[in-house]
Amino acid sequence: MIKHLLSGADLDAATATEILDTAAEMATVAGREIKKLPALRGRTVVNLFYEDSTRTRISFEAAAKRLSADVINFSAKGSSVTKGESLKDTALTLQAMGADAVVVRHPASGAPHRLANWVDGSVVNAGDGTHEHPTQALLDAYTMRARLGRLAGLSVAVVGDVLHSRVARSNVLLLSTLGAKVTLVGPPTLIPVDIAGALAPGTDVSYDLDCVLPDVDVVMMLRVQRERMKDSYFPSAREYARRYGLDGPRMRRLPEHAIVMHPGPMNRGMEITAEVADSPRSTIVEQVTNGVSVRMAVLYLLLGGNNR
Amino acid sequence: MIKHLLSGADLDAATATEILDTAAEMATVAGREIKKLPALRGRTVVNLFYEDSTRTRISFEAAAKRLSADVINFSAKGSSVTKGESLKDTALTLQAMGADAVVVRHPASGAPHRLANWVDGSVVNAGDGTHEHPTQALLDAYTMRARLGRLAGLSVAVVGDVLHSRVARSNVLLLSTLGAKVTLVGPPTLIPVDIAGALAPGTDVSYDLDCVLPDVDVVMMLRVQRERMKDSYFPSAREYARRYGLDGPRMRRLPEHAIVMHPGPMNRGMEITAEVADSPRSTIVEQVTNGVSVRMAVLYLLLGGNNR
Amino acid sequence: MIKHLLSGADLDAATATEILDTAAEMATVAGREIKKLPALRGRTVVNLFYEDSTRTRISFEAAAKRLSADVINFSAKGSSVTKGESLKDTALTLQAMGADAVVVRHPASGAPHRLANWVDGSVVNAGDGTHEHPTQALLDAYTMRARLGRLAGLSVAVVGDVLHSRVARSNVLLLSTLGAKVTLVGPPTLIPVDIAGALAPGTDVSYDLDCVLPDVDVVMMLRVQRERMKDSYFPSAREYARRYGLDGPRMRRLPEHAIVMHPGPMNRGMEITAEVADSPRSTIVEQVTNGVSVRMAVLYLLLGGNNR
Repeated sequence: MIKHLLSGADLDAATATEILDTAAEMATVAGREIKKLPALRGRTVVNLFYEDSTRTRISFEAAAKRLSADVINFSAKGSSVTKGESLKDTALTLQAMGADAVVVRHPASGAPHRLANWVDGSVVNAGDGTHEHPTQALLDAYTMRARLGRLAGLSVAVVGDVLHSRVARSNVLLLSTLGAKVTLVGPPTLIPVDIAGALAPGTDVSYDLDCVLPDVDVVMMLRVQRERMKDSYFPSAREYARRYGLDGPRMRRLPEHAIVMHPGPMNRGMEITAEVADSPRSTIVEQVTNGVSVRMAVLYLLLGGNNR
Repeated sequence: MIKHLLSGADLDAATATEILDTAAEMATVAGREIKKLPALRGRTVVNLFYEDSTRTRISFEAAAKRLSADVINFSAKGSSVTKGESLKDTALTLQAMGADAVVVRHPASGAPHRLANWVDGSVVNAGDGTHEHPTQALLDAYTMRARLGRLAGLSVAVVGDVLHSRVARSNVLLLSTLGAKVTLVGPPTLIPVDIAGALAPGTDVSYDLDCVLPDVDVVMMLRVQRERMKDSYFPSAREYARRYGLDGPRMRRLPEHAIVMHPGPMNRGMEITAEVADSPRSTIVEQVTNGVSVRMAVLYLLLGGNNR
Repeated sequence: MIKHLLSGADLDAATATEILDTAAEMATVAGREIKKLPALRGRTVVNLFYEDSTRTRISFEAAAKRLSADVINFSAKGSSVTKGESLKDTALTLQAMGADAVVVRHPASGAPHRLANWVDGSVVNAGDGTHEHPTQALLDAYTMRARLGRLAGLSVAVVGDVLHSRVARSNVLLLSTLGAKVTLVGPPTLIPVDIAGALAPGTDVSYDLDCVLPDVDVVMMLRVQRERMKDSYFPSAREYARRYGLDGPRMRRLPEHAIVMHPGPMNRGMEITAEVADSPRSTIVEQVTNGVSVRMAVLYLLLGGNNR
């Protein structure tokens, strides 16, 4: 098993599949049929969040607690960080306090990789800048496999601001490893010419959502990050929604079996309408539930459970 | 047993009495004679706070932990909420993560009711706008019963800014159900003409505190919410304290057995003087202790303990 | 055993040594060989922080959780404190909720002492104003003893802004009790004439770091608190670093066995250079690990473990 989970590229097909299979076992706990496992009793998991993300933090916190780990939340706000402490010194401090795993979210791409050089414990990337968010990719893959029965050969459209999306990046890497074919869809300003091939050979690009929809098994809508949307990208939010938003008529162009995904939190009415978000094709709520299972599996496998 | 606790009006006399009796059993734990019960081991309680209230949050957190539940704190600040996520999507997310109970404080009256429509777990209203705060009413009732031996037939004065007080509202509803008689006391601008009857038949109104005091068993001082006090309500804070504040001389007009309550946090010198707050008649500290017992009872009964 | 830990002066030699010896036993847990002890199961430790200090808060939180206590974090921001609640009422509230220990950090010197008058539980001073930080002194003493084999007879230089340093103050008190000799080193504006003798007889003062270094066993660099540094103290940060910062050439003037300490977080390049901080003489990371052991010992002894 790998020691850290920093990138979708860290995972070969066997390791990724082991995580997904373990997550399926964990699902009986995450789904609350079994309430708690003693696997990580006495282990300390630190959530080191330099960016706000209650959703991701809570998912990791619930996962760790269901494995009986102790969880310590460390929000960079109101911390030594504001006194100018470096990431390295923070890492050494957490290490010295006995953190068995550090779950880190950071605005700077690559911060979790640097952290992993400084600590003996495991590092899990919970989102770094515009770079990666590998547990999101794993929970997405888990959800596709659970709904559609397989990953190999699936055709997946990832739609929106690919340029700034760590979710897109990690998904492309992992899905290509697992044999799915990804098409990136969005305005040309948000999909750089060389991004697809650079991420994974065989990844396609399209600027026309309506053309792509009839042939995909999965359409994954990315969150529009208004704070990153500059007026220069696009004439207006309404224009964006008109061309790249998923609404009822567009959803009905999908094959009957196809599913609709979104990492959340949604901008309802922007990249996705309420009709689509709440339709039976939508896996948005399942993705959240699967997120707890997948993070349990990741923590369990990285920390070696009781056997370590 | 009810599934949610949203309003004092949700509780009939039998249910309210069951909660108070259970709280009395829990008091041996809340009072730290027994340190911990395993009743909710493996259950997850989420504190979803859209308004700051450390006091209430800690009381629920202590209650849940003494029942061995896992507690996850979710402060709306620095969360997806600031990214525009709707209350509904937040609810579905917590639900999907396996929250067994959501304890919610929200500035909008009615928010916990809406939340309860969206989740399978139990919802406990920990204060919504100017609307309700039912566990506060339960702990107040518990405290009266513990001090005075009964609730039926008690005469209770609730004094202050009744208009904006969720504590007053929930107390009137619960106390009338349990057979106590409430008199609302305060300046006319803060007690709308029709509020008393609308809340519970038989509730009286008075604008003269000194007239009311000699005949009550309980006087409950409400916190003056300076942020809600407009100059238009009242000439000045000093004038408010002079007419509706409880000081030593006024306290001595109470019957000998009467008790003084306050939900905290107090503005000492404003609605209550230090002499009164620290007198043996004051139940202010007991109310806090009883709050943990009552919240343990509520969580235990809503979540069904080990039997569910 | 003492009931509270408020000041380095609370500790006589026997009590301090008992804490250090207990910490040495706890180190097998803090060092993660043993994952968890059941000693404080069911006890509630409240971290009451009126100032940000993630590092100290996490250290106490990890210590309490490894003893199986429940931990409740209370940050004064966003609490009743901002609604004007007094420290006394906050204390009575925590007491009433059943806090077995309150770990308090407060900007006002003396606040933990006042707190201790109001609660039945134990109070641990985690830093009050410019006054004291006794667990820091204990972990420093633990680290010296672990590295150098003894405390009695050691010569320790404490370097920097002594005037505003609670770390310095607690260290002088504890080290003199344990038989070490302290020399305070820094600019005259930051070391008042009478401070040394007032703290502990036999404490020396020097304004010349280079003179002191060849004769010490320990050099403890204090953090420069930029927010407290006024231009009036010193011409410039660069000038401060030149005269009182510890760099490689200065470090090499120390005796071969001497160690370099820093309470963290460091201003690398200011009071200490990276070369020194990362050298084998530096105990900075060990201090963090020892901090967890020492705080486990303090909580264990104050709360009486399972025997109480």
